[in-house]
Amino acid sequence: MKSLPGSDLKNLVVVLVRPRNPLNIGAAARAMSNFACPTLRLVNPYKLAFRDARSAVGGAKLLQTAEEFESLPDAISDCSLVVGTTAVGSRSLDQTVRFLDDSTGDLIRERLQKQKAALLFGSEKTGLSNKDFSYCQWLLKIPTSDQNISMNLGQAVAVCLYELARKPIQQPEKDITPAEARELEKITSCLMDSLRLSGYVKPGTDELFEKKARQLILRMELEAYDAKLLLGMVRQILWKLRQQKD
Amino acid sequence: MKSLPGSDLKNLVVVLVRPRNPLNIGAAARAMSNFACPTLRLVNPYKLAFRDARSAVGGAKLLQTAEEFESLPDAISDCSLVVGTTAVGSRSLDQTVRFLDDSTGDLIRERLQKQKAALLFGSEKTGLSNKDFSYCQWLLKIPTSDQNISMNLGQAVAVCLYELARKPIQQPEKDITPAEARELEKITSCLMDSLRLSGYVKPGTDELFEKKARQLILRMELEAYDAKLLLGMVRQILWKLRQQKD
Repeated sequence: MKSLPGSDLKNLVVVLVRPRNPLNIGAAARAMSNFACPTLRLVNPYKLAFRDARSAVGGAKLLQTAEEFESLPDAISDCSLVVGTTAVGSRSLDQTVRFLDDSTGDLIRERLQKQKAALLFGSEKTGLSNKDFSYCQWLLKIPTSDQNISMNLGQAVAVCLYELARKPIQQPEKDITPAEARELEKITSCLMDSLRLSGYVKPGTDELFEKKARQLILRMELEAYDAKLLLGMVRQILWKLRQQKD
Repeated sequence: MKSLPGSDLKNLVVVLVRPRNPLNIGAAARAMSNFACPTLRLVNPYKLAFRDARSAVGGAKLLQTAEEFESLPDAISDCSLVVGTTAVGSRSLDQTVRFLDDSTGDLIRERLQKQKAALLFGSEKTGLSNKDFSYCQWLLKIPTSDQNISMNLGQAVAVCLYELARKPIQQPEKDITPAEARELEKITSCLMDSLRLSGYVKPGTDELFEKKARQLILRMELEAYDAKLLLGMVRQILWKLRQQKD
């Protein structure tokens, strides 16, 4: 009997954003263990839930090494692809929503060959927020019945990992090194500061523009080299703007 | 945004054999609801667990219509394909073990077009027994890491249904009507009686031979018409053997 067909999910990062139920945290960890996906990160977990999950009988070793983060950008900083899961396909978003299937699996597997990719799952009640989505290159939806679109967190993790683990990691089509999230976030941050100083961002519209700017940068699909180049440019502009202000 | 890509799982029967944990029963029902699979049957569920699952807040409508059975053959009697799930691929069984994937999905989907197929899940601790397996045409294994082969019940149900729901129901290759489990079990039963009366089955080996006989009949993949024919033959032989005994 052959074992797991192929994929090594060691470069996949599962991120649970604001999970509240210890059973769900434990279930996510168990599915990760089933599909050889070792890296779990939690953003602002409900403290008691995380403690309970960790101390549960049979609690996966994986939970012992799970890391806690205070913000989503911190949790995904070393990932070059960030994909958010969503139950709602019709949410009015500018972002691409893809169904989980073989070809979306390929998009993620291709990235995993050399770099880290993050798969985000929101809290049980509300899912990921629009702000969380703004950190994602695209969104992923498990194809479910229209009658009941909302999946249990642990089951959603299991289904996604099953799909990702079913084929070997793909060779990337081009030999490029995509930029990591932390580099892109630096560009977004400098760009926002520049826009504020230049008067482009009107007072009270900060949050909206920040999401727009972040998504713009993500859509550029910058390689690591280009991200560095662009960051240098934006930083210089920001420096100049700050000088003018003084 | 398109909805569930295709499969209508109305002919799929999910059978939980001796489930003990109400949360798992509820989780199985929730996944079934997510993937539009309405028929849940339970064999000897731990009474309290079933009651708790039914009364749970948000308990699926599906649980209200779930049926209880005292034995596995009763629960699958109207199914013409019975597939048991197993975590262990290397169990020393004569039966075929197939990995869950697109082509095993096709085998089940093909059957679902005109007839009922059952997918069996064992209890949380011990899975399905060898006797349970003897009622199955073949066994199904979710491809997992060798390091942790044991999946949570609700997650296993979710993964299987995700795979089955991802493509439309297949047209069967030939236009045949496979025999239902209850017809095949009648043949097995008459055959066993005949073997006992004829002295083929030695005292104390009843259980072993019953499994062997059942599997032999299942491997024949009888059409409904042939099953009826064979049952008539075996019944006649049994009648004759009983006469001789008097």
